[in-house]
Amino acid sequence: MAKDMFLFWGSGSPPCWRVMIALEEKNLQGYQHKLLSFEKGEHKSNEVLDINPRGQLPAFRHGPNAINESVAACMYLEDQFKSQGNPLIPSDPAEKALAYQRSIEALTVHQKMVDIVTYNRRVPEAERHEAAVKRDKEGLGSEFGVWEGYLHKTGPYIAGKNFSMADVVFFPTLALAFRIGMKQEKFPKLSSYHNFLKERPSIKATWPQHWLQNPPTFDPLKDV
Amino acid sequence: MAKDMFLFWGSGSPPCWRVMIALEEKNLQGYQHKLLSFEKGEHKSNEVLDINPRGQLPAFRHGPNAINESVAACMYLEDQFKSQGNPLIPSDPAEKALAYQRSIEALTVHQKMVDIVTYNRRVPEAERHEAAVKRDKEGLGSEFGVWEGYLHKTGPYIAGKNFSMADVVFFPTLALAFRIGMKQEKFPKLSSYHNFLKERPSIKATWPQHWLQNPPTFDPLKDV
Repeated sequence: MAKDMFLFWGSGSPPCWRVMIALEEKNLQGYQHKLLSFEKGEHKSNEVLDINPRGQLPAFRHGPNAINESVAACMYLEDQFKSQGNPLIPSDPAEKALAYQRSIEALTVHQKMVDIVTYNRRVPEAERHEAAVKRDKEGLGSEFGVWEGYLHKTGPYIAGKNFSMADVVFFPTLALAFRIGMKQEKFPKLSSYHNFLKERPSIKATWPQHWLQNPPTFDPLKDV
Repeated sequence: MAKDMFLFWGSGSPPCWRVMIALEEKNLQGYQHKLLSFEKGEHKSNEVLDINPRGQLPAFRHGPNAINESVAACMYLEDQFKSQGNPLIPSDPAEKALAYQRSIEALTVHQKMVDIVTYNRRVPEAERHEAAVKRDKEGLGSEFGVWEGYLHKTGPYIAGKNFSMADVVFFPTLALAFRIGMKQEKFPKLSSYHNFLKERPSIKATWPQHWLQNPPTFDPLKDV
């Protein structure tokens, strides 16, 4: 069934991981894929550029149709395989509203994390300011605080009582944040959620291999 | 039908405008709404915070269900009213893939524009660098160049031969960019697309009133 799908991915990249979780949830195992190395610049290779002219991962296609934005790919898979595997967009209007809301809102927290992790790569040395990084870290901490609050109000999943697209989008960002230094004890609800979802088959099956094998090599979020 | 919907909005705000276009396209006229002033800080008022704790516009609810992220609200409306009005997500898999892809990808160009427009508000004076603003403007110009290329390859709509969610998300950003100084002659395909879509009933009906009445008061994108 999924033989006509192809995914270029990088290990531990939340956008790639989202697509892999969605594929598992929709029972689309057996897709073709190739693990690439960001460090070696393989995401800029011609085979990736053929699918994703931006040279970013994931680069995903279903048959001839490329869908490289991870949330777009997940929504496409849900729409195209609605009755297969687990529903990721609930049919109840209240749950549906929250699932869409949190799915898109999760891009905000993800971007705030990326801004911190990529700061030195993005900003020339002469323009760097410690105060800016400090502000960004405070901003990320507040943002994760908002999500901690969501779990207080709803839970156990990030958009209520069922696993949904919102978890597919949000979880990989949270897992990476904890991996690169954010303290679990500062966010007890998010920590329980993280430990709970770690055991979900779709997430277990796609957990970044190198995270199991190696300790993190950097911790930019240690003071978030 | 749409009497159980309520929208707080700001005039000329692309995220608000997206939701208004989607409501028109789905034949959901007659929704309740209130125009607020960003200048007066009305987006931070209690009536908004009740729906959107982030104090941002749009703040939208359908019955008791709040959906404040504009793309989430548009996708919710399409999903919930699939067979009503115009379809915004095509059923053909190739068109569907492209509609999802461009819808999410449009958030990138929007964010690049916002980063420039809000630079002085976001960045304390001591941390501002002309080189950073210049780089951001070049980045936005390249990004709109990518979209110019999309219209060369597909068109006449931004995700191919039919109006879709991708236009709902992208068009308001483009229209604002032209409004605040980006030169139409630098992007001929985008300019034609803009002039073509301006006449679409959903867009005409929701065109920012103050744009019709007043010339722009600032042009931060004049050198993009």
